[in-house]
Order: sequence, then structure tokens, then C-alpha cells
Amino acid sequence: MSGQKVADQKWKIALVGSGNWGSAIARLVGKNVKERSDHFDTEVKMWCYEEDFEGRKLTEVINDKHENVKYLPGVDLGDNVVAEPDLAKAVEGANALIFVIPHQFIAKTCEQLEGKIAKGTHGISLIKGVDVKDGQIHIFSEVISERLGIECAALSGANIANEVAQDSFSETTIGCRDIDVAKKWQQLFETEKFRVAVSEDVVGVSLGGALKNVVAVAAGLIDGMKWGNNAKQGKLTDRSLDPARLGSQAAIMRIGLLEMKRFSLEFFPGTQPDTFVQESAGVADLITSCLGGRNHKVAAAFVTKGKSFEDLEKEMLNGQKLQGVETAKELYHFLETRGRQDAYPLFTFVYRVAYEGVKPDTITAHI
Amino acid sequence: MSGQKVADQKWKIALVGSGNWGSAIARLVGKNVKERSDHFDTEVKMWCYEEDFEGRKLTEVINDKHENVKYLPGVDLGDNVVAEPDLAKAVEGANALIFVIPHQFIAKTCEQLEGKIAKGTHGISLIKGVDVKDGQIHIFSEVISERLGIECAALSGANIANEVAQDSFSETTIGCRDIDVAKKWQQLFETEKFRVAVSEDVVGVSLGGALKNVVAVAAGLIDGMKWGNNAKQGKLTDRSLDPARLGSQAAIMRIGLLEMKRFSLEFFPGTQPDTFVQESAGVADLITSCLGGRNHKVAAAFVTKGKSFEDLEKEMLNGQKLQGVETAKELYHFLETRGRQDAYPLFTFVYRVAYEGVKPDTITAHI
Repeated sequence: MSGQKVADQKWKIALVGSGNWGSAIARLVGKNVKERSDHFDTEVKMWCYEEDFEGRKLTEVINDKHENVKYLPGVDLGDNVVAEPDLAKAVEGANALIFVIPHQFIAKTCEQLEGKIAKGTHGISLIKGVDVKDGQIHIFSEVISERLGIECAALSGANIANEVAQDSFSETTIGCRDIDVAKKWQQLFETEKFRVAVSEDVVGVSLGGALKNVVAVAAGLIDGMKWGNNAKQGKLTDRSLDPARLGSQAAIMRIGLLEMKRFSLEFFPGTQPDTFVQESAGVADLITSCLGGRNHKVAAAFVTKGKSFEDLEKEMLNGQKLQGVETAKELYHFLETRGRQDAYPLFTFVYRVAYEGVKPDTITAHI
Repeated sequence: MSGQKVADQKWKIALVGSGNWGSAIARLVGKNVKERSDHFDTEVKMWCYEEDFEGRKLTEVINDKHENVKYLPGVDLGDNVVAEPDLAKAVEGANALIFVIPHQFIAKTCEQLEGKIAKGTHGISLIKGVDVKDGQIHIFSEVISERLGIECAALSGANIANEVAQDSFSETTIGCRDIDVAKKWQQLFETEKFRVAVSEDVVGVSLGGALKNVVAVAAGLIDGMKWGNNAKQGKLTDRSLDPARLGSQAAIMRIGLLEMKRFSLEFFPGTQPDTFVQESAGVADLITSCLGGRNHKVAAAFVTKGKSFEDLEKEMLNGQKLQGVETAKELYHFLETRGRQDAYPLFTFVYRVAYEGVKPDTITAHI
């Protein structure tokens, strides 16, 4: 597509992924390509890892009912969103790819796509997390970009899939080095209720979505402690009790936000500080994660139930790893290699609680 | 006290005010002056508007039980915090005054204090809100400063009185132009669990605490709408429902925070942008107010009950005015005079919902 202005290109979209968030995004994209058919091909392919659903193939049910009955039940995806079980077929002919798969599947998915993606294809990663290997941290946009030889942007924000699927008001941030491409992505995703801001800070947008999970674990620990604390405060009357511990939560969020920002500026020079304190991918996403979600929930249970994160993952997450705790470990090793763990007391505290038996209620001695 | 270094001065503290927050602060200050008796006189006077409590005078009960049985029951204030019903006596001999009264009592209190305060006395205002008169906005630190002829700092942050009284972890910000004086105040208030940051930005610290109430009203409106909305979404299964609307709340907080910052920079040149996006008096206080508190609660009821704010104030606030709605009106008139109301769409939206019958669910058409 070189030589042609991005704004004039007609993009054909494929989604690589079809979970809860992928399906919510497919619905938005499906609506927008119909309304903006001069800019986009009106059919959207959605790669869907084939599985059985009540005796039928999931992709068949999706294409029959126009509903992802398994991962986003009750929501009409539109008849132009077509589920496709074959990855190569799903991306065939597409010149804009939306990556929205769990991070543990990236390597394998990229392997299957290698050599099949035309040069000049645009990519955007909606995958949260970071890749830590051999003492280096990479954002997934970079990983995809290198593996497939394409430019890859990032989209991240305070987005709850089910809210977006219900057209409840929310915002997100797109990080993309080429501002014209960023605007094209914005055109693809934005609706009146789903506001998209664009930024050139791909790294900041991506790191926000990864680092916040560590802070959410700390917020969950605080939330877990409040119950114990209130129980101990038998002397206080109902009137003077404040079970919410909002002030403590807000303090953790603030401290965590500044640590996220500091970390990114130290190790990813060129990151924009405002991405953290002003964008949806920063402060707003952090707020949602510290108030709800699995990191917060499992961390609270860690305090109230006194079990290990390993056991709680098995019990509460069906064996999946808890992202915030995993990221805390990766960050800790990354920082330790550089002798910088003490400069990030909240991140380090979460690591030590999860892996070294440090007691959650000693938090104020650590941060 | 001129000529002597602030750090070497011995401060004698009086609190002007003794409500829920005033009592929580009196307890902290009482503990600290004992531990730091080389810097502070160990007796703390607390002016207390006299009232009847179960047949006795409230000040007598406080001084007898060392507990503010009416406004902070169940919490030991310490025997060196002395309630005093006579304002002039309470401040006599004090060279450091903590103002912590509802804003509607400032004028009258200052009137009673005029001429009684020695030059060089240090003041700090813990009063939330702004004073809007004749098309001008003043922070209360300034009002106190001008009326009494003393320097007046400001303390504001994500502080819930009952949490602070329980030594739950939280943070606050002191704004004070003289950094040595700021550090002395910090020494007076800070504990391991109550973290105090200092800043020279008196105005930013004060505005944060006032403007956040308007954003909290918007957050409450969103919270009120979610119930209605979920009820309408009967088709969605339980699994896909997300009653929290966290993404919408986070979006409102983010947009509100930036509007607060923009407003302050436009009309109070010299305000530090970081105060809003990085300090407890900014982002953290905003978060607590948007998740709890009366502005949020009454605004949610405005949507669910369909009554006017005036009626809800009578029902829910015992006739008191709702600060966020009041501030929205004051800001609107301030902005309108300058033709700038459209530059602050969230503030203006809250005003229009409260006073002009604009429907809360049209929010995305306004902001």
C-alpha cells in the first residue's frame, strides 16, 4: 500500500482472537466498517480457536446466531462479523490485523502466521502484558512487529469487555508511531460511547496495561486487610466504621501510578509521562483494575483465606496464572539484575508478599 | 517569631473546629506533639462549638472521656487534646492554627478572631471548597489569610476521617509557599500511616478539594444510571452483566481530572499541573470522592429516584446543601461571565443536569 495515503487506503480487517474482549471489539468494528464502507471492507473475519459448544462447532454457532455464545453471550455481533477456525484463511487478504489473544498464545500464533502476512499490513495489539526474557522486557507490539515484519500499534484503556459490548460509555488509548495510521485505527474503533484517544507513545500505552496488574494486587491486599482490621476494631460503633478503606486504596493507586511512570521513563526512554497520568491507558485503566478484576479479587483472598497464590490460582482461576503476581516476579528479576529493586518499593513489596512470605500488613514499612 | 528559624520555633497548636475530620486530626496532632515535644507544646486546644450531648455539655464529655462522643465516637483523642467552647480562649497563646470547620462558618469565625491573632502566627486550612463572590473565586486559605493577616497553608488529600482515626494507611498533601513552614506542618501531622507530601502549590492543593466534588456528582449520575441500564438489558445473561460500570466511572474520573487541571491553569496561573495528576490532593482525593461520599450518593439517587437535588438534600442531607452541585453552579456562573463554559463540558454538564433539566443519560452528547 506504499505510495497511497493511509486515509485513502481501504482496509480489510481481520481479528486474530475471539474471546470476551475480542468479541466485544469485533462488534464495534463490524458496526463501524458498515458505516464507513468507503474506508473499510464491510466483512470482518474473526479467527476463532475451534471448540465444541453443546455438540456443535463454536464457529458454526457464532456464524449462525451472530453471537459468541460462549464468550460474549447475549450480544449481537452483526452479520458481517464472520468467525473462521482456520487462522491462515482468517487473515487472507486482510491488510489490517487486530491481535486480541491471551499473551501465552502469541508465540505460537505468530509462528503460524510467519510468511503469510503481506508487507505493509497494519497491526494493532490489544494484548495486555509484557514479555520478559533474558533480562529484557518487550511489549507485545514489538514482538508481533518483529516476528511478522509489520508495524504494530497498541490499544489499551479502562475497558471492560461487557461494558463496551453494552455500549456503556468508556475510553481507550491507541499508541501508534505514525499518526495517520493512528487516525485510521481510531476511525475503525471509535463510536460515540467508545472514545478513542491517539498517541505516538506505543510503549507507554502498552506498559500501562501490564504494570497496572501489579498495583491491582497491592490494592487487593489492602482490600483483604480491611475486613480483618474492622473485625479487630470492635470498639468502634457502626457509625464510625468505614469498611471501604477508600483512602488507603486511593493512596495505593497514586503511589502505584507514579511507580509505573517512573519505571517506564527509566527503562524505556522516550516514553511520555502524560500517558500514565492523563490517558485512559494509564490512570483510568489502573483505577478499574484496582477496583475489580481477578488480580484484585485473588489478592484480597490471599489475605482473607491465608492460602498461597498458587493454591488460589488453582481454586479461583481454573489453573491460570495470576497476571499481576507473574508480572511482579518478572519485574523483580528485571530490577534485581540492575540493582534497582529498592527504587520501586510497591512492585518489590508485591513480589515479596507473593514469593518471600512478607506479610501484607507490613506494607507501610515497605512503601 | 521573626528572626528565629522555623525549625527551631516551638509551636503551640490550636484547632479551630472539632467535627469528624477535626477530631481525627486532633488525635494525630495530639500524639505527635507529645512525641516531638522539643518542637511543639504538648497541649492541643480544640475549639468546639458548644452543644448538648445527652444532657451534658459536649466539651465536658470530650474532656472527661477524651473522646468526641458525638462526631468521632469510639476513638481515643488522648488526654492532651482539650476541648474549649470559647473561641478566643482556644486560640490564646497559640502560634499555629488549624482551621477545620464547615466553609459556611468561616466568615463568622474569622470575624470573631479578628484582632486576636498575633502577627507571625501560622495558619493551615483543612477546609474543602472555594469561595465564589462577585465573579471571583478565592480559596479559603486566602480568605483566612486576608481576614486575619497571617500566612495560611492548605492541607487536602484522599482522607476519610474515620480511616485516619483508625490508623488506616492514607496520604495527604500540604500546600505552603514557605517550604520550611511546610516541613514544620508535615512534622506535626505525619505518622507512619498518614503520609504527608509538601508542595508550594497552595492554590492547586485547595482547588483539588473543591473541584473534585463536581466530578463526584457526575460519577454518581453514572452510577445511578447503571441500575436502570442493567434492568433494561434483560437479554444479557448474568455472566455478561457487569453491574459495576467501572470503565465508565474511570472515564469520568479521568476527564474530570483533566478539566480540574485545565481550569486551575487557566484561571490560577502558577498552579502546578502535577498537583492534580500526581498528588493525593488531586487524583487520589478525586478517586475517593467518586467512589463514595455524599456527592456521589445523592447524585446516584437523583437518577434512580427522579427527585430534584433540592428535595434530595432535604431528605438525605438534613437540609444541608450538596457541595458538588453548589460548586457546579458557582463555576458555571464564573465561566459564563467569561464566555468559557463550553471549554469545561463536564462541569457545565453537571450544572445543566442540576439546574436546567438536562437528562443525565445524554452525558456522551455533552462531554
